[in-house]
Amino acid sequence: MRSLNVRLGERSYPILIGAGLLTQAELPLAQLPTRRAAIVTNLTVAPLYLEKLAAPLRAAGAKLTEIVLPDGEQHKNWETLNRIYDALLAEHCDRSTTIIALGGGVIGDLAGFAAATYQRGVPFIQVPTTLLAQVDSSVGGKTGINHPRGKNMIGAFWQPKLVLAATDTLKTLPERELSAGLAEVVKYGLIRDLPFLEWLEENMDRLRSRDGAALGYAIERCCINKAEVVAADEYETAREGGRALLNLGHTFGHAIETGMGYGVWLHGEAVAAGMLMAAELSRRLGWLAHAEVLRVRQLLVRAGLPVQGVALGAGRYLELMGHDKKVVAGRMRLVLLKRLGEAVTWADAPPAEIIAAIEACCHE
Amino acid sequence: MRSLNVRLGERSYPILIGAGLLTQAELPLAQLPTRRAAIVTNLTVAPLYLEKLAAPLRAAGAKLTEIVLPDGEQHKNWETLNRIYDALLAEHCDRSTTIIALGGGVIGDLAGFAAATYQRGVPFIQVPTTLLAQVDSSVGGKTGINHPRGKNMIGAFWQPKLVLAATDTLKTLPERELSAGLAEVVKYGLIRDLPFLEWLEENMDRLRSRDGAALGYAIERCCINKAEVVAADEYETAREGGRALLNLGHTFGHAIETGMGYGVWLHGEAVAAGMLMAAELSRRLGWLAHAEVLRVRQLLVRAGLPVQGVALGAGRYLELMGHDKKVVAGRMRLVLLKRLGEAVTWADAPPAEIIAAIEACCHE
Repeated sequence: MRSLNVRLGERSYPILIGAGLLTQAELPLAQLPTRRAAIVTNLTVAPLYLEKLAAPLRAAGAKLTEIVLPDGEQHKNWETLNRIYDALLAEHCDRSTTIIALGGGVIGDLAGFAAATYQRGVPFIQVPTTLLAQVDSSVGGKTGINHPRGKNMIGAFWQPKLVLAATDTLKTLPERELSAGLAEVVKYGLIRDLPFLEWLEENMDRLRSRDGAALGYAIERCCINKAEVVAADEYETAREGGRALLNLGHTFGHAIETGMGYGVWLHGEAVAAGMLMAAELSRRLGWLAHAEVLRVRQLLVRAGLPVQGVALGAGRYLELMGHDKKVVAGRMRLVLLKRLGEAVTWADAPPAEIIAAIEACCHE
Repeated sequence: MRSLNVRLGERSYPILIGAGLLTQAELPLAQLPTRRAAIVTNLTVAPLYLEKLAAPLRAAGAKLTEIVLPDGEQHKNWETLNRIYDALLAEHCDRSTTIIALGGGVIGDLAGFAAATYQRGVPFIQVPTTLLAQVDSSVGGKTGINHPRGKNMIGAFWQPKLVLAATDTLKTLPERELSAGLAEVVKYGLIRDLPFLEWLEENMDRLRSRDGAALGYAIERCCINKAEVVAADEYETAREGGRALLNLGHTFGHAIETGMGYGVWLHGEAVAAGMLMAAELSRRLGWLAHAEVLRVRQLLVRAGLPVQGVALGAGRYLELMGHDKKVVAGRMRLVLLKRLGEAVTWADAPPAEIIAAIEACCHE
């Protein structure tokens, strides 16, 4: 088992990474002040892992509420959130009830926002079961839901007490979702860890064949990077750099996700296409060589990811990107690459270059 | 102008109390990082005070979004909250937009929860225009909405950057709402400030006739008390006492409000009847003399408040109280009075005595 800490003062918490963590009831049990918990999961994950997590907890004396939601980004909305509130209230869950998210990023975001807002906040544990959630969304405390006008527009920062990344749950992850998770893995290499990027170029095939040791190493490396970034900028208030760098490719990607309707593209897929747009724009600003953009592109292709955006039209992209949270006071701040392994936030990219980069990545 | 500070480390903020504060644009302006603000108010307050607040701000260069909601506790729900989100998104408000609540407790709770959750949190200013909001709900960071199954079941702690209690707005406050605010004023005397309780017994008539000096003094005294309690227990996590003491009468009161349907009784009215139930239960536990319960009753009557609960039946009371956030792990923790000026949290009141206290306050 690998372990590391997210250092946030009194909100610090451990991330544990390894096979078999799901059934080790003593780990979540230590975070249940009154042995009362609500497990939030979805219809896809529940048949595979709900009993594996719940049975040992119940055997250890925990009283559990189980909340099984529909699966998919299109359900990350108020209606689904309200199903969590309804179930918690129907079973008289109080402020000492711990909410446990068992699933991918959508479940983590929904359950985390429910934990942040149910009776003004209850303890929260993340048990991510997708690669994307294990390397990215379960760490750092971002929770929330989508709004018809934009992704993640409603939410809160709410740190978990514990993250349990049970790597054996990745065995049942669909190929497409494994690739979507690899987009965020590649992101850490691109934004701040060139040696890891090089490791990924050597080991991408092992990751895609779900080699346990390779996955464990990659997850740990991502979490170490994310924990450092989050510890330095918990609430994404840094004026330059900081947590915003984790959004490489996300502003472009949000436009794809929103423009296509939630759930058509996976988040990681949109981020992959978005990261290539960011790399292309960085080249146009003179920061990356053409060969480096091709290197990024090749790694994403080997990860099984799309590297071509959807032809929404550049105007629509800009409109959808304008609703992004990374917009500060009307200027479009983008995360770009000064070089491979070093990202920056940049508000001075000329609109014509942004449009050209989008269009270059939407046509072969 | 009176001023004091709520000491919460990096979340500390000032409370300013006085006439004429509404038009002093430089005060809120200092909390607008990009001169962008959204004022949230309601149909009752808007014609009286919206332009008074907005015009000087606009003249000073602020860009404002104005969001006017329907008035009343029955609108403290998801649908109304969503109107705030819709307006913020429609006007492209970003994370540097400050939300200003102009109104009573409902507006403060709604706008504060919107501030806590819009794009994971934006700056927030309280401009309370009711006595209840000026002495209680605008201070301390509690925000939220009601759920059909219970009051304030969904919410967040989100501290304002500034509270501006413009006492001249109380001139237009309906008599019934002035009295509702006085319930919370009396509460501070009962739970932790016997000299203030005695001052209230001497000055209640001045308060009801809206004597500016008396109101300013009472508001300051309440805010000092609340600021001390909140500073010691920001997130209401103290095992004994702490912030929970501010809920004297609230658990009984919530039962009345929920049982009657939101908006039939004003919050302060329900709290008044609830405080008398708490006093009566304290008497039954041997802590207060009968004469002291009568003294509480008389002060509430002089404040123009109801001192008799609604005959919902004791069983329904207990059921509705069981959904209260103050329930920890199934035990009913109530705030009771050890003596006048000293409250305690108490989980060991026998159910038969709780029922007897409720019934004693529901029949003459």
